[in-house]
Amino acid sequence: MDNKKSKKDLELSQRREFFKKTAALGVTALGGTTLLASQDDPAIMHHVPWGQKWGDPVTKNLYGIPSAYEHNNIRRTTKLLASGNYRASIAVTPIHESEGIITPNGLFFSRSHGGTAHVDPNEYRLMIHGLVKKPIVLTLKQLKRYPSITRTHFIECPANGGQEWRGPQFNSLQFAKGFMASAEWTGVYIKTILEDLGLKPEARWMLAEGSDNSEMGRSVPVEKVLDDAMIVWGQNGEALRPEQGYPVRLLLPGWEGNLCVKWLKRLEFASEPWYAKEETSKYTALKPDGKAIQHFYANEVNSTVVSPSPEIPWTDLKDGDVVEIEGLAWSGMGTITNVDLSFDGGKNYVKANLKGLVLPKSWTRWSYMHRYKKGEVLLLTSRSMDDAGYIQPSIDEEVSVMGVESVYHRNGIETWEVTAKGEVNHVQIRS
Amino acid sequence: MDNKKSKKDLELSQRREFFKKTAALGVTALGGTTLLASQDDPAIMHHVPWGQKWGDPVTKNLYGIPSAYEHNNIRRTTKLLASGNYRASIAVTPIHESEGIITPNGLFFSRSHGGTAHVDPNEYRLMIHGLVKKPIVLTLKQLKRYPSITRTHFIECPANGGQEWRGPQFNSLQFAKGFMASAEWTGVYIKTILEDLGLKPEARWMLAEGSDNSEMGRSVPVEKVLDDAMIVWGQNGEALRPEQGYPVRLLLPGWEGNLCVKWLKRLEFASEPWYAKEETSKYTALKPDGKAIQHFYANEVNSTVVSPSPEIPWTDLKDGDVVEIEGLAWSGMGTITNVDLSFDGGKNYVKANLKGLVLPKSWTRWSYMHRYKKGEVLLLTSRSMDDAGYIQPSIDEEVSVMGVESVYHRNGIETWEVTAKGEVNHVQIRS
Repeated sequence: MDNKKSKKDLELSQRREFFKKTAALGVTALGGTTLLASQDDPAIMHHVPWGQKWGDPVTKNLYGIPSAYEHNNIRRTTKLLASGNYRASIAVTPIHESEGIITPNGLFFSRSHGGTAHVDPNEYRLMIHGLVKKPIVLTLKQLKRYPSITRTHFIECPANGGQEWRGPQFNSLQFAKGFMASAEWTGVYIKTILEDLGLKPEARWMLAEGSDNSEMGRSVPVEKVLDDAMIVWGQNGEALRPEQGYPVRLLLPGWEGNLCVKWLKRLEFASEPWYAKEETSKYTALKPDGKAIQHFYANEVNSTVVSPSPEIPWTDLKDGDVVEIEGLAWSGMGTITNVDLSFDGGKNYVKANLKGLVLPKSWTRWSYMHRYKKGEVLLLTSRSMDDAGYIQPSIDEEVSVMGVESVYHRNGIETWEVTAKGEVNHVQIRS
Repeated sequence: MDNKKSKKDLELSQRREFFKKTAALGVTALGGTTLLASQDDPAIMHHVPWGQKWGDPVTKNLYGIPSAYEHNNIRRTTKLLASGNYRASIAVTPIHESEGIITPNGLFFSRSHGGTAHVDPNEYRLMIHGLVKKPIVLTLKQLKRYPSITRTHFIECPANGGQEWRGPQFNSLQFAKGFMASAEWTGVYIKTILEDLGLKPEARWMLAEGSDNSEMGRSVPVEKVLDDAMIVWGQNGEALRPEQGYPVRLLLPGWEGNLCVKWLKRLEFASEPWYAKEETSKYTALKPDGKAIQHFYANEVNSTVVSPSPEIPWTDLKDGDVVEIEGLAWSGMGTITNVDLSFDGGKNYVKANLKGLVLPKSWTRWSYMHRYKKGEVLLLTSRSMDDAGYIQPSIDEEVSVMGVESVYHRNGIETWEVTAKGEVNHVQIRS
């Protein structure tokens, strides 16, 4: 306890240090590159109506909601997405409005095959059976008794950007890249449960099956299960939302979103995969030779410029303004190690800065400070790399391997054209 | 580019590795300590109504809401808290339901001095003036042009637990410790703005003033401003909520919540503090000698057991069940380095495990696996330490310095009594 300080020490030292340090601070030399202080059109301070009346009581929303002024920050859908069935469809995340590496639960993208089920947590059961020594049926309370872990990971639909193999369909970041979102997940590693139940040596595959009307089923190699597969009940500090599989979903960090089965009811272990409906009719990647890639799981290294974007133009910038170009990078196979930014559609690149937390299989923010030249025309594109050794391909490189018939696993670099007026358009650069 | 792999490499190697690794997996020996698999009252799988009908379409809630079954996971208030004025009051976070280190925005504790203001972001202005070379008035759009940063920090009201200097008032974790919450904040360091505006050498203090009807004003030493003070507009990936100061609040990581002025309208730099109403009538700590500590800012090292707690009893545990004791630790002065757990009210301690991300001035999760003995009576208490060298005091140690007349900065260890039936009560252990 020698190096520990008491509460009294703290109080005294806080006050002493405080006066000492503030007295010395005046000599600090500041100043540097001008960012904004040269504004030639200063805004005016004025009397504001909200300062002249009582605000709402704390009892108004005991579960809070966004400001009414944020009504445009919502998930969106369109007939061009998914199946055309308005229940079995997708609502995409407004990633142009995103900050940091957490997506609020209310904005987390949603995709289902039979609509959003509403599960009664008291009736909920999870069965784990097949090639395990001790099969079990768990209530939610029993499941939560296993030692929990919390990890930050993105979930991405493998169809993210999949409408655009032949060229841009959406002049929108939300629709072009919003089939993904990121959260802090809480649950239990399946390997922890398997230590308890005992996995039989001949087990090679796990079937995960949902309890909604689509009974979504996917086969998962046991290797992934024993690596980092989780059963999760918590998302950003509260229970999963209904659209995310309340009360329990599977999470396979970095792998296709459809594998992260929602409203999870059953895990079965076996020696062969199941070839269920959703892993034969869908979620396979058709190649130019007519064959399809079937066992294709991890979302590959990817990135996008978030600001500017079609939704966040530069039309209000003045000549010489300094502006932050910001983006996201992510890889289902590891940690982002580098992001490059190009102003000419991918001919030349500069190195961007990674910002904030850089975590495995997680969104990573990056940025680059740019001095805007009024009238300049740019072709902005980003390219990311991960610690598994992969680099995001050009569209040409990707199409040369995959053709344009696939829907899934598009991760070629995307380009925003910044026009002379500062508008931003989604374009495709081919050689 | 030599060490980079192409998309084609990836596809091939993924498939090759996949088959190779899954073929080898069968030999992995599993098994270990039994956690749950010995359940003697297995739950039964049954037909569930939600699997037999269509779910909701994705368009139902384009900004999502929690499951209706989670209606009890809300902020709460009581007349015993704060001023008795239902507008200028506090609603506390249900931290017994918390997971990880993110609090959803809808559950982030709320305290205001004149109710929740509703600010029009188009009319919003921030003035920065006084001892700066280039005073400025910024619109929200202009403010957001500064290079942004994202950091995860808790905010805690210094009155957290302040009703209980004389002993427990609340048999509830939410009311005893819920005057705090944690989020991922996005904004700009004030030092970045000051590099642009130029701070004059004689500046020692910054006044932060809110634009709500209470015009909350607090003086902040310039030392803290130049260290890590932020102006924030983003909380957990979206705009601040109205209760948190939408569109802009001050964030002083680790310092009292009331200093993190909401609906921020003005920062003024001067050579002396202001001694504003809320830093003389309130937020000072009265000591036994009748004098009060005035410049007392950082929330000191603290911790609590979250599970079990009065809201999360052990009444359903059976003899021999293994259960995770989980808690939170936090310090406004640095990073948590250690948490100890006692089963006898603080006489003997064992070391708990820190879980997940351990970040400075941030909530830190900890846990300890315990084998429950039916009928055991426990006095559970936790004690945390930080890298600034502080250790959480006992109640006796704290009261010997501070007496019991203060409201603020209580961080003495708290005790939960686990009864023979598994009920959990808030008690106070004094020598």
